[in-house]
Amino acid sequence: MSSTLLTGIGELVTCDEDGQAAIGARSGQTVVVEDGLVAWVGDATQAPAADARHDLGGRTVLPGFVDSHSHLVFDGDRSEEFVARMTGARYDGGGIGNSVNATRGASDAELDRLVGIRLDEMRRQGTTTVEIKGGYGLDVANEARSLRIARRHTSETTFLGAHVVPAEFTDDRAGYVELVTGEMLEACAPHARWIDVFCEPNSSHAFTGEESRTVLEAGRAAGLELRVHGNQIGHGPGVQLAVELGAASVDHCTFLSEADVDALANSSTVATLLPGVEFSTKSPYPDARALLDAGVHVALASDCNPGTCYSSSIPFCIALAVREMGMTPSEAVLAVTRGGAAALRREDIGRITVGARADLAVLDAPNHLHLSYRPGVPIASTLMLEGVLL
Amino acid sequence: MSSTLLTGIGELVTCDEDGQAAIGARSGQTVVVEDGLVAWVGDATQAPAADARHDLGGRTVLPGFVDSHSHLVFDGDRSEEFVARMTGARYDGGGIGNSVNATRGASDAELDRLVGIRLDEMRRQGTTTVEIKGGYGLDVANEARSLRIARRHTSETTFLGAHVVPAEFTDDRAGYVELVTGEMLEACAPHARWIDVFCEPNSSHAFTGEESRTVLEAGRAAGLELRVHGNQIGHGPGVQLAVELGAASVDHCTFLSEADVDALANSSTVATLLPGVEFSTKSPYPDARALLDAGVHVALASDCNPGTCYSSSIPFCIALAVREMGMTPSEAVLAVTRGGAAALRREDIGRITVGARADLAVLDAPNHLHLSYRPGVPIASTLMLEGVLL
Repeated sequence: MSSTLLTGIGELVTCDEDGQAAIGARSGQTVVVEDGLVAWVGDATQAPAADARHDLGGRTVLPGFVDSHSHLVFDGDRSEEFVARMTGARYDGGGIGNSVNATRGASDAELDRLVGIRLDEMRRQGTTTVEIKGGYGLDVANEARSLRIARRHTSETTFLGAHVVPAEFTDDRAGYVELVTGEMLEACAPHARWIDVFCEPNSSHAFTGEESRTVLEAGRAAGLELRVHGNQIGHGPGVQLAVELGAASVDHCTFLSEADVDALANSSTVATLLPGVEFSTKSPYPDARALLDAGVHVALASDCNPGTCYSSSIPFCIALAVREMGMTPSEAVLAVTRGGAAALRREDIGRITVGARADLAVLDAPNHLHLSYRPGVPIASTLMLEGVLL
Repeated sequence: MSSTLLTGIGELVTCDEDGQAAIGARSGQTVVVEDGLVAWVGDATQAPAADARHDLGGRTVLPGFVDSHSHLVFDGDRSEEFVARMTGARYDGGGIGNSVNATRGASDAELDRLVGIRLDEMRRQGTTTVEIKGGYGLDVANEARSLRIARRHTSETTFLGAHVVPAEFTDDRAGYVELVTGEMLEACAPHARWIDVFCEPNSSHAFTGEESRTVLEAGRAAGLELRVHGNQIGHGPGVQLAVELGAASVDHCTFLSEADVDALANSSTVATLLPGVEFSTKSPYPDARALLDAGVHVALASDCNPGTCYSSSIPFCIALAVREMGMTPSEAVLAVTRGGAAALRREDIGRITVGARADLAVLDAPNHLHLSYRPGVPIASTLMLEGVLL
């Protein structure tokens, strides 16, 4: 295999140092990539020879963003529902049914095309790894095909049959949980790494703590690893359940008790915050500062989905985390790289170190602070995917 | 001249209807462009013949954004100051001096290059007209060259010698006002359409109401038209002064009394809101809803500048206006098109109508709602500048 030497890096951000806020931002650094992996990182004056050189012209290089929470398999437009919410309507999870109807009606080819377009959009903004959930099929055939389609695009696929109780099961919640943990799980498990559940007793559409436990335990028995949507709309059992069952991540964490924060701090479960959702639903933001100060592992992700946050922009999440959630720019950068990787229990991505995948993002800016200093401006893009320059 | 027919427009937004929130969004429409102007707008089935066709593939077309407030002529990086502010430091206008030092030290060629880069960045995000202020020179030679450089890039140039009192005049404010209204004005007026002043008694760096009046009256006597930075940091005389003197726009309007709102409502002075500044300074947002309900003409602009808002993104302003300021998506779109044009007293831009300049933006989206529905995602770009496809 040939090797590539990256020269002219203005600031290199490795995200590979010890310490909660240490991002390893340095000037005068060089990276050598070989066989899809990072082969060497160090002082530019000591760089080894390589087969090819690529000059960055003073731009900033950092690990490609790891977006550990998205819902990309859907059809239909819900912009009108968004406008209604901006002018007063409250989010309670009910609109998911609109996406379910449109998704069920779409062809495989159309869904595959839409996922591809959305992933391309993410890559153009610096995201190199994306977790993709199902959850807009809500029957056996549609959940299974959603995951088959997602699998063509990422290894991080998540079975989310327990997104909401579909309309046809409103009067038979137990029947739906039985379907999700039985026939649907069997059809979906071969195409998924993860199982997830929208644990939210504050929404009649979502699942109680006990229902969620049933779903997660069934998923684990089928060989899936666990993640949880929890504590989004109000206080509830999601966080405690995630910690108890050893989930990799509990996502949203908007409404937390002190006991929830303590539980997270004493666990390896990552708290994945999704500030684009709070932006797009006019909700209060989670208290990232309190979580970080307590020693919780924090990730930031987009939650790109057609209802509560149709933003695929990780830089936008960073800007919100700094403006609204008390995170420093460095903490926010860590949360979308190493933090996202931890939420997916991955060691090979989210940092620039010898042996890591050469998934790199580049900023049209002299340093990483510009991700929050220049909100809304598309300065981030993907430089390399597994060592291949885009 | 040859003509071009735009086909396949998913939604056409003309911003050319009566009514404060009427944006003229329709499907099935076609536009013909000829000689740099809009030559025909109407039902696609009745389109006249043209020399060339350009297919939009279902995308949304709207007037190019008119960004009526920016400070693009500067050198130096202030990202560290931004971080300090995000972690607690308060904005009082004092950091402008950092940009002044860096700008004075830059060559003409470097400043020209930087303005070009920033304008290109704006165009890539759908902005087709930009007002550019000086204000980081603060001596005769540097203000004059800032405006000469700005003039190469836009006809909407603004003399802002009265941005702050420079360090060397701290003990002689009257002397600085004399310089601004004398030798500096004389050197700058040939390169500017507008004169502006940072009227803000709440900052020791900026200008009082009386100082501002002196500056504006001198500018008018020299043939310049008036605009004002007012009521940004606290209550003050900026709005009333702008209305009294018939300024085209008073910008910021974060802290307004009822009397200020009444004065604006009974004037032709536009209130230009700059929500990116509130985002980047952690300040309260202006009450756009109250202004609109009172009948005030409202514009939104970026205020792209290295201190309080280094965002050039008009879509980001729209998303903030909808999330934080009570504007509807339609009102926000009007405020960055027809509203921006009104703030520059221009009739030839900001709308799509026969005879208007063919400055057009395009959205990678089925309708204009996506500008607020998809925050942070770069869906907007410039389609045409004076009829030339980019």
